[in-house]
Amino acid sequence: MTPTSQNKMFGGTQSVYAHRSKACDCDMRVAVYLPPQALNKKAEHAPCPALVWLSGLTCTEENFTAKAGAQRVAAELGIILIAPDTSPRGDHVPDDKNSYDFAKGAGFYLDATQEPWAKNYQMQTYIRDELTAWMLANFPIDSKRIGISGHSMGGHGAITLHLKNPDLYKTCSAFAPITSPSQVPWGRKALKGYLGENQADWAQYDATELVKTPSQANILIDQGTDDNFLTEHLRPEIFSDACAKSGQATILRMQEGYDHSYYFIATFIEAHLRHHKNVLG
Amino acid sequence: MTPTSQNKMFGGTQSVYAHRSKACDCDMRVAVYLPPQALNKKAEHAPCPALVWLSGLTCTEENFTAKAGAQRVAAELGIILIAPDTSPRGDHVPDDKNSYDFAKGAGFYLDATQEPWAKNYQMQTYIRDELTAWMLANFPIDSKRIGISGHSMGGHGAITLHLKNPDLYKTCSAFAPITSPSQVPWGRKALKGYLGENQADWAQYDATELVKTPSQANILIDQGTDDNFLTEHLRPEIFSDACAKSGQATILRMQEGYDHSYYFIATFIEAHLRHHKNVLG
Repeated sequence: MTPTSQNKMFGGTQSVYAHRSKACDCDMRVAVYLPPQALNKKAEHAPCPALVWLSGLTCTEENFTAKAGAQRVAAELGIILIAPDTSPRGDHVPDDKNSYDFAKGAGFYLDATQEPWAKNYQMQTYIRDELTAWMLANFPIDSKRIGISGHSMGGHGAITLHLKNPDLYKTCSAFAPITSPSQVPWGRKALKGYLGENQADWAQYDATELVKTPSQANILIDQGTDDNFLTEHLRPEIFSDACAKSGQATILRMQEGYDHSYYFIATFIEAHLRHHKNVLG
Repeated sequence: MTPTSQNKMFGGTQSVYAHRSKACDCDMRVAVYLPPQALNKKAEHAPCPALVWLSGLTCTEENFTAKAGAQRVAAELGIILIAPDTSPRGDHVPDDKNSYDFAKGAGFYLDATQEPWAKNYQMQTYIRDELTAWMLANFPIDSKRIGISGHSMGGHGAITLHLKNPDLYKTCSAFAPITSPSQVPWGRKALKGYLGENQADWAQYDATELVKTPSQANILIDQGTDDNFLTEHLRPEIFSDACAKSGQATILRMQEGYDHSYYFIATFIEAHLRHHKNVLG
């Protein structure tokens, strides 16, 4: 398997790969950071924990890789970082060129049922099944020590995938996540567009609905108070109220003065990696 | 003075400003990171050290700011980071659209004498005089505790500006610098284009010539062994030989397997900031 790019970083390797997704009927790009511990030839006998990172609207696999500064901490803790793209790609994949918040760059980590999106926009199946199989087949990852995190739309993806698959994603954290998509404009546009008008079909992708069945994990959320999208699209209080009701352990930290950017993520990524590592071991 | 963008990061603020350069006859953009220590109201009475960062070919003020991860360490050490753009900008500024290594994005931190470049490409005067005056006037910087660093073309800028102005830039470091521009293609193209055919005029911008008069500083250089530009454009051995002859203290660290990217810079930026802080105090 040949990476499309590879750079040494903090003693490990930061690579980008393309691999075939049957679910999305396209090639998907994935950024993979292997810490020094995973390059050790003994690593296949003592596999590493991994963190899957899901990015937000308009992002690709590159944003987290170039801007978050996560590799430094991953190298210290021996965590493999897996950062997939945010939607199917390719000229044959339908797009909505007038929207930054729908179609390409905005797959919302769900399986679309509506045309013309259903043929390619199968991001839940891709991330949960295909990406997992691919990363376990190709890197020295301990399948029992996988966590998931993400930003904004990717925070929505991380929390919903964790709550539905707690045996696969043992730990979960998020930065400024969309946590009640059925109730906010970004979420409603996506859920309606990909899944249709029937709101009963939306619940499986709404963290506030899913958390009624809590997980064993302690979900860490950081949210900036100066985030432009806080009161319209993110609304973490809806989710934290639902967590309190259901008994889901959650730490929601409102970070004074921080915004929605990767400067915010870079500031707190170390705490998130340690949160995952503490449980995954 | 109003920034064009401002983001909270590691308890400090990462901002971008535009200010007028008479020397370049254009507005220049500068990225400024103020660590928490500089936001303290007492900071003007106990000013902070500052590090000026000069970027490489094709870069703007943004590359270092978004990708190097320097702010984390700057916040710890209380260092103000000043990252200017790499050339004059604007529709009225002449460009060479067929070159990535000349004109816009490639000012080479010198004062051009040849037309049509001389009117705007006065980057040495801009960085040394105008940027210094602007940053001292606007931020709580201790004028006696300024260091300079940079990457590639910016490493060339950092070393030459330090060697010519050791009282202004007390400390110096570089990543993969162009250290003997008179002898390599990138350098020869720039020196000939901006300064003309007379090679006697080039020496004031050639670190290998300038180091014949050594500085008191200990110049730290990191250079990746897998850098694609190493043997054609960078050639640090020419400079380190000249340092050995002149008595200039220099640490040249060949970093096994690292390339020319910001992934390389991110890996070693902490060591560089500590190198500067150790001397600047």
